Amino acid sequence: MSDFVESMAVVAGRLGEELMRHGLCCAVAESCTGGLAGAVLTHVPGSSRWFKGGVIAYDNAVKSRLLGVPDAMLGRYGAVSHPVVRQMALGACAALDVPLAVALSGVAGPDGGSADKPVGTVYLGLALHGVAQSWRYRFAGDRAAVRHEATRAAMLRLREALLDHA
Amino acid sequence: MSDFVESMAVVAGRLGEELMRHGLCCAVAESCTGGLAGAVLTHVPGSSRWFKGGVIAYDNAVKSRLLGVPDAMLGRYGAVSHPVVRQMALGACAALDVPLAVALSGVAGPDGGSADKPVGTVYLGLALHGVAQSWRYRFAGDRAAVRHEATRAAMLRLREALLDHA
Repeated sequence: MSDFVESMAVVAGRLGEELMRHGLCCAVAESCTGGLAGAVLTHVPGSSRWFKGGVIAYDNAVKSRLLGVPDAMLGRYGAVSHPVVRQMALGACAALDVPLAVALSGVAGPDGGSADKPVGTVYLGLALHGVAQSWRYRFAGDRAAVRHEATRAAMLRLREALLDHA
Repeated sequence: MSDFVESMAVVAGRLGEELMRHGLCCAVAESCTGGLAGAVLTHVPGSSRWFKGGVIAYDNAVKSRLLGVPDAMLGRYGAVSHPVVRQMALGACAALDVPLAVALSGVAGPDGGSADKPVGTVYLGLALHGVAQSWRYRFAGDRAAVRHEATRAAMLRLREALLDHA
């Protein structure tokens, strides 16, 4: 297998150019990917001009402490859910003082799946200027594949948000 | 090139076993590696038992906002320095409520080097139970190689801290 981070260099580089064109700086909030999206973005030389940082919110306590996800929300919907990834994205914008953030929370496996949310289920949240959206994915493959596809989806959603952006 | 994260699976897995044996949970604070250390740790299935999360403090503002690095310290010593990586590690322990954290800040290149801190210079901080240590490295190779070596060093220092731990 070739290096995943390296393989995303062109995609991340183009995203960086778009961010600079829009004068925007972004951040990440990562649960299932554990830092992989940040690693992909910062692989690009000069990424400090358009990437500010992120929170690796692997444990639920980090989602509430640093990203402001209410415990009641985690309890009611679970960490892998639409409301939680939206709040993670909004919380990353607030914590890192940026207008744009992407959030990922999913079941990378091999354990942790359920009938409702089988292994490969990933929710992606995106916040731009205080407005959050979210999507549900179901990726195939092993733990590494799910994390790679989730990271790839984050790059695409960030790019898409910029295309829609005035 | 094979996948870096995948190549670290055995090292990260052994570290996780050691952390569990000691009943410790850890965190990361990453600047130059941008999430790569977190990605390596969370590649291990079940890592949520011993890895809580981290802060990707790419921008200096994140180092101060989320990790409590004083602006005066950043101004005096620079982000790539012993005092800053020590405070990043201590700040990660506080922000994520863990007893053990590793922090990385360096010049991954290709730009940003100086006579004093050439490309490849990386400082690594480690905090355990409120006591911080730090080390300076000089890694060879391109941006990817420097980030890989820094991440590998973080895994080794975490492991070493546990070996010394009663």
